[in-house]
Amino acid sequence: MTDYRTLRVALLGAGAVGSQVAALLRRHADELADRAEARLELAGIAVRDVDAPREADLPRELFTTDAETLIVGSDIVIELMGGIEPARTYILQALNSGADVVTANKALLATHGSEIFDAADQVGASVYYEAAAAGAIPIIRPLRDSLAGDRVVRIMGIVNGTTNYILDRMDTEGAEFADVLADAQALGYAEADPTADVEGYDAAQKAAILASLAFHTSVPLDAVHREGITQVDKAMMDAARHAGYVIKLLAVCERLTTDAATEAISVRVYPALVPRTHPLASVHGANNAVFVQAEAAGNLMFYGAGAGGVQTASAVLGDVVSAARRHIAGGVGVGESTRANLPVVPIGHVTTRYQITLEVDDRPGVLATVAGILSDGRVSVATLEQTVVAEANGHPGVARLVIGTHRAREQDLSETVERLAASGVVERVVSVLRVEGD
Amino acid sequence: MTDYRTLRVALLGAGAVGSQVAALLRRHADELADRAEARLELAGIAVRDVDAPREADLPRELFTTDAETLIVGSDIVIELMGGIEPARTYILQALNSGADVVTANKALLATHGSEIFDAADQVGASVYYEAAAAGAIPIIRPLRDSLAGDRVVRIMGIVNGTTNYILDRMDTEGAEFADVLADAQALGYAEADPTADVEGYDAAQKAAILASLAFHTSVPLDAVHREGITQVDKAMMDAARHAGYVIKLLAVCERLTTDAATEAISVRVYPALVPRTHPLASVHGANNAVFVQAEAAGNLMFYGAGAGGVQTASAVLGDVVSAARRHIAGGVGVGESTRANLPVVPIGHVTTRYQITLEVDDRPGVLATVAGILSDGRVSVATLEQTVVAEANGHPGVARLVIGTHRAREQDLSETVERLAASGVVERVVSVLRVEGD
Repeated sequence: MTDYRTLRVALLGAGAVGSQVAALLRRHADELADRAEARLELAGIAVRDVDAPREADLPRELFTTDAETLIVGSDIVIELMGGIEPARTYILQALNSGADVVTANKALLATHGSEIFDAADQVGASVYYEAAAAGAIPIIRPLRDSLAGDRVVRIMGIVNGTTNYILDRMDTEGAEFADVLADAQALGYAEADPTADVEGYDAAQKAAILASLAFHTSVPLDAVHREGITQVDKAMMDAARHAGYVIKLLAVCERLTTDAATEAISVRVYPALVPRTHPLASVHGANNAVFVQAEAAGNLMFYGAGAGGVQTASAVLGDVVSAARRHIAGGVGVGESTRANLPVVPIGHVTTRYQITLEVDDRPGVLATVAGILSDGRVSVATLEQTVVAEANGHPGVARLVIGTHRAREQDLSETVERLAASGVVERVVSVLRVEGD
Repeated sequence: MTDYRTLRVALLGAGAVGSQVAALLRRHADELADRAEARLELAGIAVRDVDAPREADLPRELFTTDAETLIVGSDIVIELMGGIEPARTYILQALNSGADVVTANKALLATHGSEIFDAADQVGASVYYEAAAAGAIPIIRPLRDSLAGDRVVRIMGIVNGTTNYILDRMDTEGAEFADVLADAQALGYAEADPTADVEGYDAAQKAAILASLAFHTSVPLDAVHREGITQVDKAMMDAARHAGYVIKLLAVCERLTTDAATEAISVRVYPALVPRTHPLASVHGANNAVFVQAEAAGNLMFYGAGAGGVQTASAVLGDVVSAARRHIAGGVGVGESTRANLPVVPIGHVTTRYQITLEVDDRPGVLATVAGILSDGRVSVATLEQTVVAEANGHPGVARLVIGTHRAREQDLSETVERLAASGVVERVVSVLRVEGD
């Protein structure tokens, strides 16, 4: 056996991912040593309760409740506790003591990323977070390194497995949101409190991380526009299918030009209509995919399992090997490039295509009124389909209008929809959905 | 403007990719400097003929025919000449003078990779080659870094755009190979001499590079089993479609267990039947995709444009930025890990599923004879479809048998097919195709 130098690895957290990481570090020790050119010695695992039941079979003496002592003298600290504190404090302590940090903590990076990357820069350490953006899908290195010589124009990502699972089942089975959600909770695909997933908070954190990397800009989480999928119902799904679309919760990160002809970016999460022919439309179940458009590279897509303990552990261990190689090779860590520092525009300034579904009175002149309001609001109609809804809401003579627009400005669009709703001829605004990827 | 250190970049070759790289290095100089934290000064471009016409508008004084002098004192040398010599000599000269090397030269890496990586190791320099495996698709970093803590089980890649373009058009238009090839040549998708593409030589080089990385093993090019697509005809395409498959030229890199229960790998390129439901079946036109199965990460897919000057330039520039960051950060380069050094088994030892199409005499007892030969040869039948071919080859009473097998060993299969051909009841072996991805 080759005589490698030993690196001391501290693990913080022993949940689903942490247990897998610990088990794999031990099971594949020789193979990992060959890859890292260093022996990775798991020095300990910091947990809140040493005696709690664990998924993996790990020696009891590895566990400690004293994270701070464990961190001292470690070469690599793996943070898999989640949450903001004490994770943030431990990571800063680790960096300041000269360790490299591997983390899957998207909530922390999306809110305190700048602080953590700055701390790493100052001591020449590195922070690795491949597992924080799209589970096991390698997307951080492609964005940070492979596309470093290119200009990313746009990212569209399906980055939350739970919502993709729900929307996919609604689409393929014609089921209602609440029923699929209950089923997903029973199957363990969704949490008992599903808010973080279904309201788009998880996707928004990942969008902030992806946009920061892609556009070399520090994107604060509160600059990310966020809408969840709780309003998506069977009728919207059916209408989307009829029109050749599927509804996906997308994280969209986009480079754009402001009215003042300067560069800016938009980062937003919402359910959108995606053409059935687009590669993202074929992402089924709890899978994730990130579609990247770059100036020179053209269209790229990265696809794989979004989450799961063992899949995420794969991404974490890849980072651990990278950190180990850097320790062995010497040199300072390479920080995050945020020098472009582009402004993030609010959602009102974004232009995209829309599909507006209205229920209107089915009588002469109504279409002209609707068309007039759209035109006054600078919303140009691309397609229009009218169907008579028999006895809708008890009113005979109600028609359904499905209006596909050309690219329009979000602010114009939302003001126009308000005017439509108040026009007296519109019974109900059934839905307003953005169209992405066409 | 930030006061960056300047790194001297030498470019060897000014073809389609080289011209784009030179143009982008100059056009995006400020942005690249921010990403690399170093100014990338294009010191010169070595070409055979200074006065040859170029695709990009570049100052004449950059060009030189004296590559050796240009290399001296360079920090980063970009080799885009292609071919074995003098590319090999220049790369070794660059490494020995302390420069990092970026290359897209798959032929050179597939044949002299070990020599080049060893030379880099000895001086602590790095060789970057993201553009050598699948054009603009970031696959090298994911395999080398992101999956470094995982175990790759299998790679199936569509890594040659020309053959995918040809097969896709044959599939969608029902056209014949020769007609589509002629068209592809007229459109510039295929070379005047298409041998490297249609006979699978290009794909085999990429397969050797991918397998070396994925399995931490030096895979010599002559250990790669290679078959091209020139035998694929309209009838085979139609039969594949009828059975729910599409024919793709695949590079398959697989971890397997030998009869002696030791680990080994198989690396092979051939046209294979892929189920229409597999993500690789949806890769159209000249696009590339690499499907990776890893023990922990599960199934991943990387998709994008396979080739083209500007797409490949994106991958090259990403490598240049990485090389620059390493120069600035200090430390030695990280070499290729080939410590696993698994043996590559010959194709005869590989097991896979097959689809055998035969024309047989349509008379009693023939099926029993065929079934007996298959069973004697340890080839187990999974599906069988018989159709009567009216007047096939002028013989009335010829039936077509399409036999889908369970997994069988290639050597058993090929011996069995030989016995079938010699059995007296088989008029013609129409085709034998492997099935992958089901």
